[in-house]
Amino acid sequence: MRVLVPFAAERPKTRLADALSRPERRSFAAAMLDDVLAALRGAGFSPELLTTERVDRDVTQTVDERPLTAAVNDALAEHGAGPDDPVGVVMADLALATPRAVSRLSAGGDVVVAAGRGGGTNALAVRHPAFRVDYHGASFLDHLRAARRVGASVRELDSRRLAVDVDERADLAEVLLHGDGAAHDWLRDAGFELDADGGRVTATRTRR
Amino acid sequence: MRVLVPFAAERPKTRLADALSRPERRSFAAAMLDDVLAALRGAGFSPELLTTERVDRDVTQTVDERPLTAAVNDALAEHGAGPDDPVGVVMADLALATPRAVSRLSAGGDVVVAAGRGGGTNALAVRHPAFRVDYHGASFLDHLRAARRVGASVRELDSRRLAVDVDERADLAEVLLHGDGAAHDWLRDAGFELDADGGRVTATRTRR
Repeated sequence: MRVLVPFAAERPKTRLADALSRPERRSFAAAMLDDVLAALRGAGFSPELLTTERVDRDVTQTVDERPLTAAVNDALAEHGAGPDDPVGVVMADLALATPRAVSRLSAGGDVVVAAGRGGGTNALAVRHPAFRVDYHGASFLDHLRAARRVGASVRELDSRRLAVDVDERADLAEVLLHGDGAAHDWLRDAGFELDADGGRVTATRTRR
Repeated sequence: MRVLVPFAAERPKTRLADALSRPERRSFAAAMLDDVLAALRGAGFSPELLTTERVDRDVTQTVDERPLTAAVNDALAEHGAGPDDPVGVVMADLALATPRAVSRLSAGGDVVVAAGRGGGTNALAVRHPAFRVDYHGASFLDHLRAARRVGASVRELDSRRLAVDVDERADLAEVLLHGDGAAHDWLRDAGFELDADGGRVTATRTRR
């Protein structure tokens, strides 16, 4: 399956600004991208970057500076996804993605959708030519509605690993706990450790 | 499969104190328990309450006032879990649990484990007589180690629905977004609605 990986190359993850400097956020985002690409390749998929500017990666890249929704929908329209020719869309910050988790995008259903926390949509497989995305707001519910509107069947991909998109400081603990790739190593190298004092484990930085 | 559902009947969910009064927390916790029991029964499992005091539910109940770990380990020791006689342990606050999600506890593996956020362990299936739990701190990693120590194979149950234990205000949005049972209805009836203004959708209370 061809899988689009949207990537905001120039705009680092701003909601991590309380934990990481701007250059650090760029570097950490690149590590997460590497993990996602590795998981997709490990599942036998063909990842393609849909990126706001060219990045130094050995992967097919389409440069599109527009917002996420417009860029993805143009790619979907161009591809004309169908039952035998699905297109995946997988976010670049799923640092816990594994080949096993992303391979579940191959399950039947015109639209296979993995929710993120807070109502987002972290991964999709589209097998219906009329389905379009809308990533604004609570996109998961919007995508269920959009599928119904075009008569596409929906299958929920129920994965914790794909539900964790790393946006906020609290998410870093999940990477330390469950990651084993580049993003995990990046955080360790940057001095982050698990802190098990509170109700849930958090990530604290012990050095810079 | 026999599935233990630990339930702290008298101590409401204290970390929800900023969102719900004490009687409300008791009532909401009971609604979540109903959802978990329904999901387990829907999967063909036999749920049993391991509760700190008797509750008004038509379900087998063992009353044990001790902390979670001691109570569960005694139940595991008494049962003597084996390959053909597994025991499940599923938390009572998994308001997004569905029959499909919990049925994945039947997958092979001496210990099947579903992580919660922040390093917790939300669901287990135990098929090894020597495996014991320790819910203190980052229990997920501890349970991986405990399985290794007794030579038990481990399978990760990668489920977002089982990863969401409802402890904190931020978790309420997940119930509004993805729940369709008693807990979801309880929150709606109590005046909670989704608020899609921020980066992630949150739950706000519009009335009392």
